[in-house]
Amino acid sequence: MSHFVLTCTGCDAEHTVTMRVLECSACGCPLRIDYRGAGPAGAPMQVPLRRPAAALTLGEGNTPSIAMPAAGIAAGVEQLYGKLEFSNPTGSFKDRGSAMMMSALVEHGVGEVVEDSSGNAGASVSAYAARAGISAHVFAPDSTPKAKLRQISVYGATLHTIEGPREEAAAAAIRFAESRNVVYASHALSPFFLEGMKSFAYEVSEQFPGRMPDHVVFPVGNGSLLIGAYMGFEALAERGRLSRTPALHAVQAEAAAPVAAAFYDQPWIKAEGARTVAGGISVAEPPQLHRMVQALRATGGSAATVGDDDILRWQRLLAEREGIFAESSAAAAFAGLEALATRGIISPGDAVLAPVTGFGLKESPAAQG
Amino acid sequence: MSHFVLTCTGCDAEHTVTMRVLECSACGCPLRIDYRGAGPAGAPMQVPLRRPAAALTLGEGNTPSIAMPAAGIAAGVEQLYGKLEFSNPTGSFKDRGSAMMMSALVEHGVGEVVEDSSGNAGASVSAYAARAGISAHVFAPDSTPKAKLRQISVYGATLHTIEGPREEAAAAAIRFAESRNVVYASHALSPFFLEGMKSFAYEVSEQFPGRMPDHVVFPVGNGSLLIGAYMGFEALAERGRLSRTPALHAVQAEAAAPVAAAFYDQPWIKAEGARTVAGGISVAEPPQLHRMVQALRATGGSAATVGDDDILRWQRLLAEREGIFAESSAAAAFAGLEALATRGIISPGDAVLAPVTGFGLKESPAAQG
Repeated sequence: MSHFVLTCTGCDAEHTVTMRVLECSACGCPLRIDYRGAGPAGAPMQVPLRRPAAALTLGEGNTPSIAMPAAGIAAGVEQLYGKLEFSNPTGSFKDRGSAMMMSALVEHGVGEVVEDSSGNAGASVSAYAARAGISAHVFAPDSTPKAKLRQISVYGATLHTIEGPREEAAAAAIRFAESRNVVYASHALSPFFLEGMKSFAYEVSEQFPGRMPDHVVFPVGNGSLLIGAYMGFEALAERGRLSRTPALHAVQAEAAAPVAAAFYDQPWIKAEGARTVAGGISVAEPPQLHRMVQALRATGGSAATVGDDDILRWQRLLAEREGIFAESSAAAAFAGLEALATRGIISPGDAVLAPVTGFGLKESPAAQG
Repeated sequence: MSHFVLTCTGCDAEHTVTMRVLECSACGCPLRIDYRGAGPAGAPMQVPLRRPAAALTLGEGNTPSIAMPAAGIAAGVEQLYGKLEFSNPTGSFKDRGSAMMMSALVEHGVGEVVEDSSGNAGASVSAYAARAGISAHVFAPDSTPKAKLRQISVYGATLHTIEGPREEAAAAAIRFAESRNVVYASHALSPFFLEGMKSFAYEVSEQFPGRMPDHVVFPVGNGSLLIGAYMGFEALAERGRLSRTPALHAVQAEAAAPVAAAFYDQPWIKAEGARTVAGGISVAEPPQLHRMVQALRATGGSAATVGDDDILRWQRLLAEREGIFAESSAAAAFAGLEALATRGIISPGDAVLAPVTGFGLKESPAAQG
């Protein structure tokens, strides 16, 4: 008897724990993990693993939060902090999710997986698969920066580059998984991957013991960090370990803004040929759209869209003024913060935190504009 | 009155603290920092800063140490740990030294610096200079991987690429500093930079409270991490906070092995045209040679040289078996460990730690062989 079940986020139907089901068989919505018992000892917060002490780790998490005074002034807020998620072992926040998902896959005896990614998740899954001795197939758009494609291959995953937009890579991965009967370890759908993201919230609560940030501003594509952080803050609140959940905000590129549109009850259709330098957050049809909007609304947050010029301007500003080399998708959060401050949604006196989700080293020089 | 002085490592002559003197005026040897009083409160261990609480930080240090069982088996030791120094904010261990050196430069009101580097130190100094609002000139060999050259520029430093081997870049930096009367902030010579490296030892003692590693194996070029770690272990031992200092070992590339030669009392002359993929440790005339040999001998350590084939084999092994993408200079330490275990200098039952000094993302694909 497992100490958790998989519950549908749409209709609350319960599903037996397996690594092969990612969506509700009744309504098609994504699944979440619901704890039903104390679970094994050894982890301060509950985790969906039978043997947490034996979980895979490459040293992910425990990333520093640093003050960013110059960026704060430029964005229009007095207190700005960056949580350096690019300090994770493969250079992006995805490692939190990969560690948990791959640990669960090991517990379930899975020996081969398929994943699709715009780059960072693919590299992360490839690294943890290497560590676990699991074979990995990673499907990525052929427009992915070369440094990211190379990183996926370096760890030993089989790389499949797919022509066309991000969605084509996802479709190809699903076809491959079905035809070969291989587990589809989707970072966008796996409830285990999302569960791994909760540690972001746990660390924020430890790093800001006196005064929690009033706002956390996320760059959002599939939204795993936003949703995972929300779940983490909720878990802390349920245990009485958090006085207040920060307002969570989503920033998207103008070319791929379904979450921002949904938040403002606007229709959104991907424009033909629309592209953004922020490939890491270029997701036209995120499967967890509704959960993201719910997280924004429940916390009193909001959404913003930003253009490539502003993204690249912030990427330069973070490097030249703060000494932080963020990838363009990560810089988008700061451009979005500036927009939210300009609109008065975030006030000058508010304390703001933004994750720096990925390392600029992962992008080819062309992305620098 | 400063709470520390600069003491010559050769003749023990004392020098007034300034950012412009890097070598003893009497004998030409490098300087070290000697504490003469309790110093300001706020830091658990002494630091050469007047205001430690105001020190520059980009979140450097506190890097994870992880078990590397597959690499241990391949190297011939049962317990192998990697300390992931590439998790530092610019992707290499240099950030420990840059944070301390640039903090001291800020305290001394320095507004412009010159540095020479094979890449990592240049990027690190460039990032901390950006954070400090200090103008930086970085001199690097034109053979430096493009990703490293780009990273130096991204943070805003003025990049000067110099034809020829590493030594030419150093000579050009010194000429530039003298002709412009700019501070030469040499990571190879600055006693402040070395002082910043001591935190590596402090963290090791905290991360291995039960049993310290028997050996720490360093990839060595200018040797700042080796020397700094040695000083850190010594400082802990003086305070009674360390039962035993691990044996410290130096690994060098065959093409640039002055430290290994000196350790074994062999002559060493750089072979005409000799090169290595491990550019980060390719230093023909390290100014702190004697201190390195002293650290090896005092701790019961040793030295080894490794060829490019073994370096590249270990780079692949770490990625494909451990999920760790090390740059080639970092992989050299593991190749050296294998050599030391083969020679019986390190025994199968010994616990070994090696820093993974730099991120593989910093190298161009060509370096992968």
